[in-house]
Amino acid sequence: MSEDDFIYHVDGDLVAASEATVNVRDRGFLYGDAAFETMRAYGGEVFEWNAHMDRLAETCDVLGLEHGLTRGDLQERVDATLAANELREAYVRLSITRGVQPGKLTPDAEVDPTVVVIVSDLPGGGRGSQPVWDGPATLQTARTKRVPDASIPARAKTHNYLNGILARLELRVTDADEALMVDTDGYVTEGATSNLFFVQDNALRTPSLDAPVLPGITRRVVLELAREEGIPVEEGQYTPDEIRHADEVFLTNSTWEIRPVETVDGLSIGDEGDRGDEELTGSAAGPVTTLLSRLFDARVESTYDD
Amino acid sequence: MSEDDFIYHVDGDLVAASEATVNVRDRGFLYGDAAFETMRAYGGEVFEWNAHMDRLAETCDVLGLEHGLTRGDLQERVDATLAANELREAYVRLSITRGVQPGKLTPDAEVDPTVVVIVSDLPGGGRGSQPVWDGPATLQTARTKRVPDASIPARAKTHNYLNGILARLELRVTDADEALMVDTDGYVTEGATSNLFFVQDNALRTPSLDAPVLPGITRRVVLELAREEGIPVEEGQYTPDEIRHADEVFLTNSTWEIRPVETVDGLSIGDEGDRGDEELTGSAAGPVTTLLSRLFDARVESTYDD
Repeated sequence: MSEDDFIYHVDGDLVAASEATVNVRDRGFLYGDAAFETMRAYGGEVFEWNAHMDRLAETCDVLGLEHGLTRGDLQERVDATLAANELREAYVRLSITRGVQPGKLTPDAEVDPTVVVIVSDLPGGGRGSQPVWDGPATLQTARTKRVPDASIPARAKTHNYLNGILARLELRVTDADEALMVDTDGYVTEGATSNLFFVQDNALRTPSLDAPVLPGITRRVVLELAREEGIPVEEGQYTPDEIRHADEVFLTNSTWEIRPVETVDGLSIGDEGDRGDEELTGSAAGPVTTLLSRLFDARVESTYDD
Repeated sequence: MSEDDFIYHVDGDLVAASEATVNVRDRGFLYGDAAFETMRAYGGEVFEWNAHMDRLAETCDVLGLEHGLTRGDLQERVDATLAANELREAYVRLSITRGVQPGKLTPDAEVDPTVVVIVSDLPGGGRGSQPVWDGPATLQTARTKRVPDASIPARAKTHNYLNGILARLELRVTDADEALMVDTDGYVTEGATSNLFFVQDNALRTPSLDAPVLPGITRRVVLELAREEGIPVEEGQYTPDEIRHADEVFLTNSTWEIRPVETVDGLSIGDEGDRGDEELTGSAAGPVTTLLSRLFDARVESTYDD
């Protein structure tokens, strides 16, 4: 199915993707002045809907964007879009822009928001499901530094995505899959569109939200699953070198779920340590990554049982 | 004339403003992945066209955006838009986005750009002209820090404008006109949509481009005019306190031209020094600001004589 064959939801109406447009004076276009969430639907239901709505509210709070829409309003639009496309397993992108306002940068308090729902088809999730990615990721440290919280708070998920795009552009030479972004002090933050985890000394570690890191929904679920399973968890401050020499590394986001990392800056992950069964089975994912992936699949599976 | 009455130029066609749209999958909308220039036309000609085109090329270079359009192509679209609106004195915003690409953050090298020209009417320029602003600006130091060059180079003028918007949102309480933005080290950079100049010890001073500062076209013209006039000029590193206690402060951008600043963080500018004639005439602008404004008007005037 081509992208053009989908039906989107724009400003209250279902429209063919090819005719789904916003005015060029919409602040979402002029300035990237918009909040959004990327979500995944399993069996027709958006996974972790409430968590996504909490984060969307947080983004709008940072942007001072009082859109006046209830979660019920937004859910109706998402549901209508999934239904119109007869989609149960889907990628869902929900954006709220500050709409069209008089021609100046300072936003008016009075907002007529533009709401856009974009969908696409994905494979189903849960036990035994196929990942959306082709294989384990190759990761490359980018020279482009993550925007500091003091400039634009990382907890706001907005249409201002050039920082990640500049990092991804650096990958053209090596053809790596994801950029490992550090902050202006040189500490690891996240990927351009993913959170980062690694395993060292049998503990699961991830950059703390004190750094400019998006509080990923999948990140939070993975931390919950690890704690429930009794895996030691640490949210801290790490250097790229610690990632390069980790026993296991993986990335998370709502579409990828949990994606193992094979190499960081060309170095194979886990080569220095004892990989145990993974070496024998040829799997790229280490034992903790594999365990968490299975636990995540089980969590997704439970949404189908509702 | 309402904004809706204008005719814009979108993706090769002249269209009514109300029907001027881009697809919701355009990267300019999804990510703010677009370059732009804000220009001013006097007597039907864009002021400093070549300088704007040089900067646009620089922005596209930073974004790795090879749009394939010549300056002649772009000029034709701007000229056609001005003609369609019968505008000779105008605001002109020219944007080039990376267009619609397959649904992933990493840009494809192959680009089908979207070109958008938005116009509006302005008063004429030159000697004796009326400024577009209501009066001298009030300036307030923002807590939001300018995005560092290491994250997104400030020389790129893009649709990622949330950094400036967050700074402007801080002005809601005091109702100041412009945000004075400092970098992450606390040094002054610029306003949300303007470059900053001040006069101290009879020298004209402005933050150097070593800091995250947009190389404004009006900024460059003002520096040229000052040097031609023999006014001592310094591009350096300054603290907000030096601005607060300056003899004169003014802002520049293509629309405002030169706009005097009356107060910074509530403090009146020039109160401590000798204001001379300005005190007597009641003008808010100090002598150097007034002189530069006249020289700027003369420069604009010469475009009418072509």
